[in-house]
Amino acid sequence: MKTIGIGLLGLGTIGGGVFKALAEKEQVMAEAAGAPVVLRKVLEKRPVDIEPSLLTTDFQQVVSHPEIDIVIELLGGEHPAVDLIRESLLAGKHVVTANKEVIAKHGAELLATAGEKGVALQFEASVGGGIPLLLPLQHGLLANEISTIYGIINGTTNYILTRMSQEHTGFGEALKKAQELGYAEADPSNDIEGRDAAYKLAILASVGFHTTVRPEQVYCEGISRLTGPDFLYAKELGYEIKLLAIAKQAGDQVEARVHPVFIPQDFLLAKVGGVYNAIQIDGDLVGQLIFYGRGAGAQPTSSAVVSDVIAIGQAIASGRKVPSAMRQARPKTVRSISELRTRYYLRISLADKPGVLAQIAGILGDRGISIASVIQKETDETNQTAVIVLMTHIAREESMQSALSDMRKLPAVKRISNVIRVEE
Amino acid sequence: MKTIGIGLLGLGTIGGGVFKALAEKEQVMAEAAGAPVVLRKVLEKRPVDIEPSLLTTDFQQVVSHPEIDIVIELLGGEHPAVDLIRESLLAGKHVVTANKEVIAKHGAELLATAGEKGVALQFEASVGGGIPLLLPLQHGLLANEISTIYGIINGTTNYILTRMSQEHTGFGEALKKAQELGYAEADPSNDIEGRDAAYKLAILASVGFHTTVRPEQVYCEGISRLTGPDFLYAKELGYEIKLLAIAKQAGDQVEARVHPVFIPQDFLLAKVGGVYNAIQIDGDLVGQLIFYGRGAGAQPTSSAVVSDVIAIGQAIASGRKVPSAMRQARPKTVRSISELRTRYYLRISLADKPGVLAQIAGILGDRGISIASVIQKETDETNQTAVIVLMTHIAREESMQSALSDMRKLPAVKRISNVIRVEE
Repeated sequence: MKTIGIGLLGLGTIGGGVFKALAEKEQVMAEAAGAPVVLRKVLEKRPVDIEPSLLTTDFQQVVSHPEIDIVIELLGGEHPAVDLIRESLLAGKHVVTANKEVIAKHGAELLATAGEKGVALQFEASVGGGIPLLLPLQHGLLANEISTIYGIINGTTNYILTRMSQEHTGFGEALKKAQELGYAEADPSNDIEGRDAAYKLAILASVGFHTTVRPEQVYCEGISRLTGPDFLYAKELGYEIKLLAIAKQAGDQVEARVHPVFIPQDFLLAKVGGVYNAIQIDGDLVGQLIFYGRGAGAQPTSSAVVSDVIAIGQAIASGRKVPSAMRQARPKTVRSISELRTRYYLRISLADKPGVLAQIAGILGDRGISIASVIQKETDETNQTAVIVLMTHIAREESMQSALSDMRKLPAVKRISNVIRVEE
Repeated sequence: MKTIGIGLLGLGTIGGGVFKALAEKEQVMAEAAGAPVVLRKVLEKRPVDIEPSLLTTDFQQVVSHPEIDIVIELLGGEHPAVDLIRESLLAGKHVVTANKEVIAKHGAELLATAGEKGVALQFEASVGGGIPLLLPLQHGLLANEISTIYGIINGTTNYILTRMSQEHTGFGEALKKAQELGYAEADPSNDIEGRDAAYKLAILASVGFHTTVRPEQVYCEGISRLTGPDFLYAKELGYEIKLLAIAKQAGDQVEARVHPVFIPQDFLLAKVGGVYNAIQIDGDLVGQLIFYGRGAGAQPTSSAVVSDVIAIGQAIASGRKVPSAMRQARPKTVRSISELRTRYYLRISLADKPGVLAQIAGILGDRGISIASVIQKETDETNQTAVIVLMTHIAREESMQSALSDMRKLPAVKRISNVIRVEE
């Protein structure tokens, strides 16, 4: 009987979780795939405590192993992962990976290579951990034209924002707590600057819109500028603040951006707390869908990796051709953030003098930006500073940036404390 | 070039929606399937306004049509749908259906027939409308042992319960509103008695647990006994009332039941309002997942049906074997509701006399059921009636039913107004 041979690259946190799952799920996999799934080699350079005959530090022992059908890449990071995936595909191996950076940056090229070699490249685990997202987008929702993807796809930042919103914790303190709990890394910049989410959004938008959105085309703003008052004003105005990954398409135009947003409190996405992920997808037939679950961690990632392995295993065991993962890309234009049209929240520190609000309203009005509501509450008598909070009607990003630039030149404007876009 | 020929059975609300989607999505389907998808025949006995050469009232013209590869069954109801599906499979046609009753009652037999004939039987649209549920359970979550499925899978009842909870509408009035809006049928009994949800749960549990749960094995209780006070007490105690479809497995034991439940207000499922559906799935690797979307209607159902057609079309066009939908069933025992262990909410009208609560507590205590909390508020002075609301700790259903039976015999108990199970 044919067996499905596995080569595993990387035995870190995620690799270790998959290693464990492969052992524990031996029977389930054999039953589901229709053939035994056998781990043949593990590539890991650090010392690890596994059966020595499995272990190698030489990639050639994996890629040229005649009994390895599927290579699971869990090294993370761009290099050397991208080269090892490419070489594996070229050697006729199927590849399963959780590597969002490699797929976001090199997915189109690697999928083309997989297609030429007649092998599969599966990467469900690269977005949303164990939540089945790419499977529905690639199969169960194929009848739909997807108009919008909204994603809370970074658990670290969602944990931090949840604490800041619910417990009025400052950013630094919330980050420290996240690090203590293992939800944030020692160097958290990839998460808090939104780059992790941007990689995932590039993958979601590419798959959902049947095109190629490159990560550098995703506008990206992190959460480190958010402060306590922003959360208090958001609540007062009926909103929550979330780091949202947003992709929209209309005709041959695509927008893709990651930044903090105000979303109405009664949106289900506003209620997604802690390290959980949630992805909202709007299709023309299906309407609004939300997928919710744990977006990271060794076990949820293993769920996606092992399920991808089973899917490929089924095809191998039954002698079927493995269907390719992505349809031919349709060329689309990714719009610049400056063309965005949305509402804005502005928080501004002003000298408490007559006429200042009129000057600000004038700068906005000159650019066709109208004000929906104003809150002015705090006046700090000592330094004669007032804080005003403005919500605008829909405006163009370019106009808003120009207005902000002019506002900064007003002597009475002490600081533009924050500018946050609104989605509703 | 090979084309994918379609025969459509039924042109009612759902059939009409799919007919429209097949026409509008011609290009998308051809691109995704890799071959043109062409509607060859439509079976409908009522007069309809479509191209006459497509229309037939004779099923033989569909099932023996040499250019029909896939039969889409959208007649609804058990008969004659089950026979037409069976004959189509026996004639070597792939079948896509939205028919929950047929799949719940005859799924195992029909899947076996499909397997013998080497054709596909797909039924994503039978549960949760356009929400991809069976696809993840059959593929993306295969690595998991699913322990629990919680489903709000009937939009009609969820709409009624949402109105009753949020607007303090009575059951009759909420039902009438649902009927006016087209969310409930003229004869709503299938929905409000929970039978519709029971069919869907039988399918979800069968697919999710890789076994066969028959609809008559699903314990089923509807929502018509719920009244305004139940919703007020639920809120006061921190709960929402939902009609939940619940399936759990542990070892070779399965439980499957549909009934109103108290769920904590902070559960995401408690926040699912209106006609929306949401299904929570707990897997050993993936943890908790929730899928949310529109569970009914012509368009969402078309989304699932057309996507199933595309999946089969892809296999036909590329000459692949179509993978079978369900793995071989593992035999499991479906437990009787009397073995359930859960918490209970009881609302009881009593004669307002000393010692009555003690009698009730005694009856419960004799069966090892302990009381977690008591609310006693209203006393109707005119007829000397008090209402008490009890929350119990975990108890066995059999013991609770025996206690209720004894309580009803107490002269001081005027009425057991409601008994609602708690999930938390």
